[in-house]
Amino acid sequence: MADWQVIEGGVTAPKGFRAAGITAGLKPSGAPDLALILSDCEAIAAGVFTTSQVRAACIDYCQDLLEEKPTARAILCNAGQANACTGEQGKRDALASVESLAAALGIPSTEVLTASTGVIGQRLKIDVLQAGIPSLIDALSSDGSDKAARAIVTTDLVTKSIALETQIGDRPVRVGGISKGSGMIHPNMATMLAFVTCDAAVSPQLWQDMLRRATEKSFNQITVDGDTSTNDCLLALANGESRTPAITAAGPEADKLEAMLTEVCIHLAKSITRDGEGATCLIEVSVKGAMSDRAAGQIARTVAGSSLVKSAIFGRDPNWGRIAGAAGRAGVPFDQNELSIALGDFVLMSDGTPQAFDRAAASAYLTQQSERSTLAMSKILLNPTEAGNELLVAKTQTPFLRPKLEIEALAHPVQIAVTVGKGDGEGAAWGCDLSYDYVKINAEYTT
Amino acid sequence: MADWQVIEGGVTAPKGFRAAGITAGLKPSGAPDLALILSDCEAIAAGVFTTSQVRAACIDYCQDLLEEKPTARAILCNAGQANACTGEQGKRDALASVESLAAALGIPSTEVLTASTGVIGQRLKIDVLQAGIPSLIDALSSDGSDKAARAIVTTDLVTKSIALETQIGDRPVRVGGISKGSGMIHPNMATMLAFVTCDAAVSPQLWQDMLRRATEKSFNQITVDGDTSTNDCLLALANGESRTPAITAAGPEADKLEAMLTEVCIHLAKSITRDGEGATCLIEVSVKGAMSDRAAGQIARTVAGSSLVKSAIFGRDPNWGRIAGAAGRAGVPFDQNELSIALGDFVLMSDGTPQAFDRAAASAYLTQQSERSTLAMSKILLNPTEAGNELLVAKTQTPFLRPKLEIEALAHPVQIAVTVGKGDGEGAAWGCDLSYDYVKINAEYTT
Repeated sequence: MADWQVIEGGVTAPKGFRAAGITAGLKPSGAPDLALILSDCEAIAAGVFTTSQVRAACIDYCQDLLEEKPTARAILCNAGQANACTGEQGKRDALASVESLAAALGIPSTEVLTASTGVIGQRLKIDVLQAGIPSLIDALSSDGSDKAARAIVTTDLVTKSIALETQIGDRPVRVGGISKGSGMIHPNMATMLAFVTCDAAVSPQLWQDMLRRATEKSFNQITVDGDTSTNDCLLALANGESRTPAITAAGPEADKLEAMLTEVCIHLAKSITRDGEGATCLIEVSVKGAMSDRAAGQIARTVAGSSLVKSAIFGRDPNWGRIAGAAGRAGVPFDQNELSIALGDFVLMSDGTPQAFDRAAASAYLTQQSERSTLAMSKILLNPTEAGNELLVAKTQTPFLRPKLEIEALAHPVQIAVTVGKGDGEGAAWGCDLSYDYVKINAEYTT
Repeated sequence: MADWQVIEGGVTAPKGFRAAGITAGLKPSGAPDLALILSDCEAIAAGVFTTSQVRAACIDYCQDLLEEKPTARAILCNAGQANACTGEQGKRDALASVESLAAALGIPSTEVLTASTGVIGQRLKIDVLQAGIPSLIDALSSDGSDKAARAIVTTDLVTKSIALETQIGDRPVRVGGISKGSGMIHPNMATMLAFVTCDAAVSPQLWQDMLRRATEKSFNQITVDGDTSTNDCLLALANGESRTPAITAAGPEADKLEAMLTEVCIHLAKSITRDGEGATCLIEVSVKGAMSDRAAGQIARTVAGSSLVKSAIFGRDPNWGRIAGAAGRAGVPFDQNELSIALGDFVLMSDGTPQAFDRAAASAYLTQQSERSTLAMSKILLNPTEAGNELLVAKTQTPFLRPKLEIEALAHPVQIAVTVGKGDGEGAAWGCDLSYDYVKINAEYTT
């Protein structure tokens, strides 16, 4: 029961945020590669970072900074070089980029967070980045979210953004976000990034807790290929510019804000999955009847990540055996005689017993969901000429239309519903199908 | 430092074992589909079973039986129907097949273990199976291992078998094994099966413990696509017919036997991986320098199972970034500044720093290992005409040559060596590359 509405503006929809994205020259392609999100005032800051043991310099930098003090004004993000596996030099480069931006903005460097995406093992082109900072600051705008979203992508086919608005104490409060990622497409190209802004006033610990829980229900429940990047991070700023009463403890206002934050994260996470390498559809797995939400989420994630399930969906095959098999190996105990599986409206298995169903119709459902989603995706491709969508793209150049199309692209998932018992635990996860193009994208890069 | 030699005979190499494989008519294709392994006397029996919550009737049957008493004389295995997701009827069918065989052999039904592989959700064709039992028993032979190995496969390209011999107390002791599996190729087709025989005399608990540890170093360290079947099982019989002193406690004899048992399991496990769906090569990941063997094994398994690493290898891409990424997300703490990676003889990363290396030569190494292994595989294909290897197959029809060729097919793995620190922990895992054919095999089945 969503208590919010979709609005325009992405990360600049919340009050007091501006954003920019420019071509600094970090990417060989000449595509935009440097982004900035800036809050007019100091904002409460929280972050969630990759759990990998191999971590980029920017990850350590942000984590250390946020442990010292949970505030920030700016998020600087470059695409082109990941600045991972770059040792001490990488740390110096990350610090230099932060200090240059802070100096140009006239703010303390401890108010700047930073993220990188691109080729692992390559140093930041720090001179190029520093030379781009004046133009980046000049480009800051209260409708700059789309440009920032464009400048953080690497091999993504589409940008990812969303903004929602609700009422707290009779005043509007907004959460916006942008993200990038579609697996580790090119060799050494990496990273899922997401940046969230909010104009509510919220206490630091509460904001961090909300973000952690939202991450568990969103980014931690998606899978493209099971790989975790050296640079994955989610950063969230809440600047209080909505002038609503400060939320400092659990309660209805906190719940409302957290629900909206979670929805923003789920949207951004699903967008990444739908843009998974070679994907032709979004798969949404819902699990209920488990002993806990955590158990349900684990089963959902296992089904969504199963290569066998993913390739069956690509083959438009309503294959309950593979879904049952994946659910069974999720590491969560359940009674197989209580296992039920539905695909869209088709009941494939009920209480452990395979059911008769119309295979052709179930297969047609898979085809239909893929076609609808692919059509919506085609309207927002970043490089429409590559995909032959020149005619469609003309309609999509207005910033007012794009967010609706991004939502439309996620509106037709292949729905897999699994019941594992009579418990109250529920959970969901998202994945994409496994196609020839996944292998092509990941294998055919010439070394 | 292998203290054994490879011998002929598979599961019938150990003394006092006979085996058979026939076409009973369970498979629509008319290929062999019913196998039997029989010990002349009661043998100590141990088993390791799928950890899935969705389990075939035969799994529950064997596990219950072995918990009651750790002995058996016979292993009956059918291919064609998995007898999984078949409810109470499935249990009755499993029991009926066991009782029919026991009656025909004149032994207690509690001396018969059973395994099934094939289509999930389909009942055993119990009448056909029972009708085949007399012919199956007639076919029992002391060189019947190859026929049994042939009758347990489903979509495997090759059979899998091995036998080793060592000396215990100046007398020869042998361990033999057969296995099947290459992922869950067809929709609803499942299962990794392995059957091991041994003529040593060993106490039940020791035999079970040895099998469990051997499984951890072999079958639990391979990955084709990360999916676990409803029917996976490993059964092992030790009948004492070598007339060597009984091994009842830890010590040099037990170590020797366990090492040989482990080697048999590793060979069978690697064979399954090399025959992975669409695989063009075997990948062997060795990890050292970890805090424990378990930690090293976990890192090895994560690298071997990474879709990104697998597709890079298929693309002949010496991609250290993906290997580092997979190692980093294995859930094992290490210092990234101590991470080193080698591919064959090429050092790609040393102490956290990418190294200069000859990319073309490293890529050629990947191509070479794949070609050598594929050539060896082509000589033992079950359906050589499909792959156009008619000329080669003529050489391979003697049972004396086949085991050597099976070993040859595993002799050219792509070797990835990872060092994560200065600890004593070591481990290895095996996987295969991810090719277009994996997707093709798993997606293009028409429902």
